[in-house]
Amino acid sequence: MLEPRLKPVVLDDVYAAASRIGAHAVRTPLLESEALNERFGARILFKPECLQRTGSFKFRGAFNKLASLGEDERRRGVVAFSSGNHAQGVAAAARLHGAPAVNVMPSDAPKMKIDNTRAYGAEVILYDRWTEDRVEIARRVSAERGMALVPPFDDPFVIAGQGTIGLELIEQAAERGAQLDMVVSPCGGGGLIGGIATAVKGLSPQTDVWAAEPADFDDTRRSLLAGRRVKNEPGRSSICDALLAEQPGELTFAINEKYLAGAIAVRESETVQAMRDIAKALKLVVEPGGAVAFAALGSPELDVRGKTVAVILSGGNVDPEAYARWLSAN
Amino acid sequence: MLEPRLKPVVLDDVYAAASRIGAHAVRTPLLESEALNERFGARILFKPECLQRTGSFKFRGAFNKLASLGEDERRRGVVAFSSGNHAQGVAAAARLHGAPAVNVMPSDAPKMKIDNTRAYGAEVILYDRWTEDRVEIARRVSAERGMALVPPFDDPFVIAGQGTIGLELIEQAAERGAQLDMVVSPCGGGGLIGGIATAVKGLSPQTDVWAAEPADFDDTRRSLLAGRRVKNEPGRSSICDALLAEQPGELTFAINEKYLAGAIAVRESETVQAMRDIAKALKLVVEPGGAVAFAALGSPELDVRGKTVAVILSGGNVDPEAYARWLSAN
Repeated sequence: MLEPRLKPVVLDDVYAAASRIGAHAVRTPLLESEALNERFGARILFKPECLQRTGSFKFRGAFNKLASLGEDERRRGVVAFSSGNHAQGVAAAARLHGAPAVNVMPSDAPKMKIDNTRAYGAEVILYDRWTEDRVEIARRVSAERGMALVPPFDDPFVIAGQGTIGLELIEQAAERGAQLDMVVSPCGGGGLIGGIATAVKGLSPQTDVWAAEPADFDDTRRSLLAGRRVKNEPGRSSICDALLAEQPGELTFAINEKYLAGAIAVRESETVQAMRDIAKALKLVVEPGGAVAFAALGSPELDVRGKTVAVILSGGNVDPEAYARWLSAN
Repeated sequence: MLEPRLKPVVLDDVYAAASRIGAHAVRTPLLESEALNERFGARILFKPECLQRTGSFKFRGAFNKLASLGEDERRRGVVAFSSGNHAQGVAAAARLHGAPAVNVMPSDAPKMKIDNTRAYGAEVILYDRWTEDRVEIARRVSAERGMALVPPFDDPFVIAGQGTIGLELIEQAAERGAQLDMVVSPCGGGGLIGGIATAVKGLSPQTDVWAAEPADFDDTRRSLLAGRRVKNEPGRSSICDALLAEQPGELTFAINEKYLAGAIAVRESETVQAMRDIAKALKLVVEPGGAVAFAALGSPELDVRGKTVAVILSGGNVDPEAYARWLSAN
């Protein structure tokens, strides 16, 4: 028998998540730019999850997970490890459920992410990303305080919550009389794209779902090619602080192996240019990890010409000073 | 008998505009930030017109005006004078109507606004803001080429088009179970706020409508106090390039005198801080003139505590380099 956490995620789980989070999450709009459509010779529909509660999609999965806990569990509270967006999502979702929350965050996470997590009422434990193991710290807190762990991606409720973006994509495209040929999404541990793929492939099997990753953190790309989960080289870094997972999740890779058309590795300079283009054409502040799917549109592996393409802008939690540097770099 | 252009604007004109522009303009969402709600002890609902087609609200009025022209007039085309947002709105609306467009723009307008206006297919005539008269240039082009003038604000169709924002505000607030106590909008020549006030006061007379202006361009504030239209001091400048009208319009002032609760003058440093707060909390790129209504919330004249307040973010057409400087200034 499967362990509960290895229960596969199906379309009905995403619908259940949608009904749980509906009153609390923002149904982010679909945005479109004539200039970008002309540039790519395609119809690009952007899903700006930077406008989501807490500034990233992570609120969806965290809220769905919190809603799935029993009353006793909720009273004892939850613990999470995250570079910041999941931390904020868990903190905000926990507050809405009246549950205490602890977040284990790297000490070099963007200041805004740490500040916001605290502002949502959560306790923050900082750790050194190079010498300490965040999973171990989170497990210890979980054991000592009887708190439920809210994993950042490898959890069926978290995946199903992120999948609500996929439901909205299909619905909102239909409202515009459009059918999606392609969906491109940022990919860290694979929870976001795994959830989206579950929804999109369930409702529109002919739509291709592509992952976008930073070049040095292209574990999903290499895992898809290898047919098994492979890790990123240790010691690498990226401006995409939201996408630094060590390797694909077990659950997420099982989904993504089945559903994804492929994955694109994006260079840092392309990510910076994407942030700038998004500011100019869409008037949105997107963090580096939130911009990689748009950056991937320039890749020769993706043939977007003449197609209708949904692009996920997954978050916008970036320190203004760093953002200003990226905007003015040339 | 009144000249056609002095026909007063009424709620029905705004409804007519809404049905004309509905298939073409973006119904911009209402956005909300828990952090900003807590900071002001109020419920602040943002209307981000930076997400509107062409990056500002101006598309609404321009499209409504183009749609009101006869087929012959449309074929001859239109001419407009504008610091940039109206130019882009007219250019995009003209293109959708298959009409040629000429825009008279100051040579020191943001490069992005000039580039975008040309990208929408319009001809741009640059003039020197300090020595030349843009109205005269536009009238000459109009006479020589038989092109209809699309005024930036003092026109009933333009005002009614901008007023569709007010309709959406009332509808979208109701969708959330909210009633607006107050609406705060940027104000240049007064077309945006005049249109909004026509809609909002028509549907919700108890809602107070406030204008926000740059301190050196507070002509509407001083005109309201004087009970007649007064001009700004010549020779002043402001980072709010979208709000540099010389004085209130005739039509717009007649509306605003009747409907506005008052106007707030905002210092440049407050505008810059507002742009930064909006980037951090809402993930939106807003130009200086688009940020003044939010900046006005800090004014002691506005008592927002405990209230539900709609704030118009009127545009986001700002050069990335200038924007980066404002974000990182301290």
